[in-house]
Amino acid sequence: MDNSIELTLKIILDAWKGQVSRVDKLLSELADEQFGNEVSPGSNTGVYLLGNLAAVHDALFPLLGVGEKLYRELENIFIKNQDKSGLEQSPVKELRIYWQEVNSKLLDYFGRFSPEEWLQKHTAVNEEAFKEEPHRNRLNVLVSRTNHLAYHFGQLAFLKK
Amino acid sequence: MDNSIELTLKIILDAWKGQVSRVDKLLSELADEQFGNEVSPGSNTGVYLLGNLAAVHDALFPLLGVGEKLYRELENIFIKNQDKSGLEQSPVKELRIYWQEVNSKLLDYFGRFSPEEWLQKHTAVNEEAFKEEPHRNRLNVLVSRTNHLAYHFGQLAFLKK
Repeated sequence: MDNSIELTLKIILDAWKGQVSRVDKLLSELADEQFGNEVSPGSNTGVYLLGNLAAVHDALFPLLGVGEKLYRELENIFIKNQDKSGLEQSPVKELRIYWQEVNSKLLDYFGRFSPEEWLQKHTAVNEEAFKEEPHRNRLNVLVSRTNHLAYHFGQLAFLKK
Repeated sequence: MDNSIELTLKIILDAWKGQVSRVDKLLSELADEQFGNEVSPGSNTGVYLLGNLAAVHDALFPLLGVGEKLYRELENIFIKNQDKSGLEQSPVKELRIYWQEVNSKLLDYFGRFSPEEWLQKHTAVNEEAFKEEPHRNRLNVLVSRTNHLAYHFGQLAFLKK
């Protein structure tokens, strides 16, 4: 059982990588124009979902306490506002690049975190609350964002039709 | 760091419970008839997705080595065959019960597994391979099924419109 935490972290990180890879593969199979379609009638477009995923992942840098966002304009367009807000959305060609850049840089950090560092608090919880709720840590954020990604990947998959 | 594995297991198990709860809530908001709709044009119906989720979760009993499936007829209809296969599908009223029963019983086991038991091999890997790949354990299955659930939950959410 001595390496149990390392093994468990590997499983969690592999799950993140696996979901990102599946989205990467889907993106490679879709033409830019297809992102203009709604994933289901009356729902979000592919552009919005891709922008939302890039924005949510970009927000992980400050949330995990490892730096600033790379593309801070994304939050207003793809998180604070809904699709069809009238705000100008970044072209798909650029969103593809943001998506790659953000995930690539995140993975650099993820690969370097020690188990101790994974279990440190994220920046949206204060020291006092963290003492009571030690599960509000970086690892929890990673697990939560992996599921967020899987959720929207299930929707983006409908663009393939 | 002494309780790091317990903390990490809590995070993983909480993520599973969270996804199941979100699906439970969605099911409570949908009438049986709504499950007859496709989640996106030309895609799976809600009936099929609910049946698939119940079947995949039911298959966790043998995969985790804790018992037999509760509803073994589900696999053929909702895993081995696609939607619109012509096979008679269980009524939504029954699928709702299967879903609850399976998850409730799974949670009984999940709550009792020790960290050592979580890191034991699942039954689809043999002893020899497991020595080389110790991440092919019960915990890995749980993480993988949580993401599978999130993926289809993202699709089921379209039934609400």
